[in-house]
Amino acid sequence: MKYLVEFIGTFFLVTTIGCTVIGGGEGVIPPLAIGSVLMVMIYAGGHVSGAHYNPAVTLAVFLRGKCPAKDVPGYMIAQVLGAVAAAAIVLFLKKNPAVEAGNPDVARALLAEFLFTFALCYVVLNVATSKKTAGNSNYGLAIGFTVLAGAFAVGPISGGAFNPAVAVGVTMMGLSAPANIWIFLVGNFGGAAVAATAFKLINPDDK
Amino acid sequence: MKYLVEFIGTFFLVTTIGCTVIGGGEGVIPPLAIGSVLMVMIYAGGHVSGAHYNPAVTLAVFLRGKCPAKDVPGYMIAQVLGAVAAAAIVLFLKKNPAVEAGNPDVARALLAEFLFTFALCYVVLNVATSKKTAGNSNYGLAIGFTVLAGAFAVGPISGGAFNPAVAVGVTMMGLSAPANIWIFLVGNFGGAAVAATAFKLINPDDK
Amino acid sequence: MKYLVEFIGTFFLVTTIGCTVIGGGEGVIPPLAIGSVLMVMIYAGGHVSGAHYNPAVTLAVFLRGKCPAKDVPGYMIAQVLGAVAAAAIVLFLKKNPAVEAGNPDVARALLAEFLFTFALCYVVLNVATSKKTAGNSNYGLAIGFTVLAGAFAVGPISGGAFNPAVAVGVTMMGLSAPANIWIFLVGNFGGAAVAATAFKLINPDDK
Amino acid sequence: MKYLVEFIGTFFLVTTIGCTVIGGGEGVIPPLAIGSVLMVMIYAGGHVSGAHYNPAVTLAVFLRGKCPAKDVPGYMIAQVLGAVAAAAIVLFLKKNPAVEAGNPDVARALLAEFLFTFALCYVVLNVATSKKTAGNSNYGLAIGFTVLAGAFAVGPISGGAFNPAVAVGVTMMGLSAPANIWIFLVGNFGGAAVAATAFKLINPDDK
Repeated sequence: MKYLVEFIGTFFLVTTIGCTVIGGGEGVIPPLAIGSVLMVMIYAGGHVSGAHYNPAVTLAVFLRGKCPAKDVPGYMIAQVLGAVAAAAIVLFLKKNPAVEAGNPDVARALLAEFLFTFALCYVVLNVATSKKTAGNSNYGLAIGFTVLAGAFAVGPISGGAFNPAVAVGVTMMGLSAPANIWIFLVGNFGGAAVAATAFKLINPDDK
Repeated sequence: MKYLVEFIGTFFLVTTIGCTVIGGGEGVIPPLAIGSVLMVMIYAGGHVSGAHYNPAVTLAVFLRGKCPAKDVPGYMIAQVLGAVAAAAIVLFLKKNPAVEAGNPDVARALLAEFLFTFALCYVVLNVATSKKTAGNSNYGLAIGFTVLAGAFAVGPISGGAFNPAVAVGVTMMGLSAPANIWIFLVGNFGGAAVAATAFKLINPDDK
Repeated sequence: MKYLVEFIGTFFLVTTIGCTVIGGGEGVIPPLAIGSVLMVMIYAGGHVSGAHYNPAVTLAVFLRGKCPAKDVPGYMIAQVLGAVAAAAIVLFLKKNPAVEAGNPDVARALLAEFLFTFALCYVVLNVATSKKTAGNSNYGLAIGFTVLAGAFAVGPISGGAFNPAVAVGVTMMGLSAPANIWIFLVGNFGGAAVAATAFKLINPDDK
Repeated sequence: MKYLVEFIGTFFLVTTIGCTVIGGGEGVIPPLAIGSVLMVMIYAGGHVSGAHYNPAVTLAVFLRGKCPAKDVPGYMIAQVLGAVAAAAIVLFLKKNPAVEAGNPDVARALLAEFLFTFALCYVVLNVATSKKTAGNSNYGLAIGFTVLAGAFAVGPISGGAFNPAVAVGVTMMGLSAPANIWIFLVGNFGGAAVAATAFKLINPDDK
């Protein structure tokens, strides 16, 4: 059932991305809607699966020692399937729209994805897996609004995925060129790995 | 008194919808205002009635076993009466404005209403009726901002009601054609029923 | 010291109103900024004074039995002084701007102020003075975002004060005609009184 | 490790400021993104360093007696280094953009920085160091959204830093003239000192 929760959460995340970006584009709406839907899906599913909805987050939580190795493939597959299903639904809802893929500057896009996926995983590990923040209700708000802030800050530079499953979804929808998907994979998993290291450095007593 | 709380909450929800959509239309303001007013009314009334303000939510909570059958008709009647009163007030405040009803694509509107009413009821059941999230303060934020995200995502496709009482209110205000009200009734109650099933599947031990 | 807290909170509320409305006017910014500053001042001062920052709220809390009669005049005087000081600061910061007072439709403005001051006081009494919501962290968010929703909904109709001290401040800044101040006084204190009655009706066991 | 947390938090704060202000400027996005990233970094780092990310906040917390004197220089150095690193990254991400420094009215800018740095430190001391608000989850939301409200209110007047490390960062990025940096230093540290005094006056029993 954990996998179903991961599927549902990633599905609504990518549906909201597709629906607000296609025909809308830059502006206040996409980051606000995307950060909000991530937040609400975290509150809805956190008690069942931990509410990753993002293979980079699953990697970071695994490296920090709070996601069993045997769950990792299932989580990632469920997340990608949710993104694929969402992309198909968005293409139907938007009537197979003519979409132009961005043409990012590779070095800057890679840095942007790395930095804000680091920020996202750093926030997730500290607010959702640390002993010292255990009673705080605001983990969902903190995680969702990290994506909101990152999408505002570097969305115009890299597209602002911070999430390999989202990268698959936006590529399927035509918002990103297939040849550029490695930028997200490298930037996102790299940011996640460094965030796990930073967490351990900062919280040496929390195992 | 539960019914009075449902009336007041639905009244302010529909008043805010009417006041921000008529003469305003698309943009950041309606979803932000609507998600916020739903959130605050949930915090104000949750301890008395559970703060549904939505017949689809009442159906989902009933199917999940947390709303007694004898309360269901009273809840739904109070919600619809609140929406009707709000529509009348909005028409006065806005001086009987000339409003044009949307002309949605039926299949897409039905799917959009189904999907985000499912999301709304799925969030409600998990954050407000699950044992495991009982101490979390953010149920109101989560539920209100689900509507915010849904209104941004599919508001341009279906109108973004996710609520049969809201559908009655916006139809009275002329924002939706009377012949289309079945789209909301089918989409919303259908989404609610599937969400209740999903909740039980995901939380088998929480009865 | 309670009075100093009321002065500081109302001062920043009215400063933010003046700075965002003058030269900005309608749009997303004023309600978002105003709801946010009210929220943060409630979190900062709630443990000292209850964080009313609004004579209508003080009246509602007094009628509900949670503000001693002897504190009422001091609270209201501190709030009005905070608003007056803020108006003077705003006029300096904005270089004595030429501002045009709104010309509201009286009946509609009165109804709008009544309705959303009722909503505001109804939310305050339920989230900040009810036994059943005592442990919830989100009272500040709920109260601040009620003003945000109300400002979006009826700001274009009445100005959206919901607060007699704010009415004094905006009148001093020239945003509202002196002859119209009774609209706020009647609408706001009337909404507060009805909200206190509604609270008692809904929460008969909470004294 | 406290210093690393201060470096990371200030780094993402200043990166978000630079990325949203350069080529974006006024509007809803910068204050919303900046308030949000400050909020999330507070939730991520609060349990390790207290999450100041601001030399004025460090001064206020020190004066209130909750930051040891021996930590003050390290905190402030880490914050400024984070801002410097962020400025360098932003200049790379934005391809060394041509930016025009604002030309503020000195007296008004000084007053604006003083007032809202006072508000910021007043909120921080009350929500994050007071015994009476110890269990509240919303300290991050309150502090982040104080900056959001201040940036909306007086951003057009002073630039809206409320933070000497941010002042260093925006000066490096060319958004503020080097000759004006004293406005921030005087306004921000002055506001912090007065806020510490106000806190002690209002909370005489909380030592």
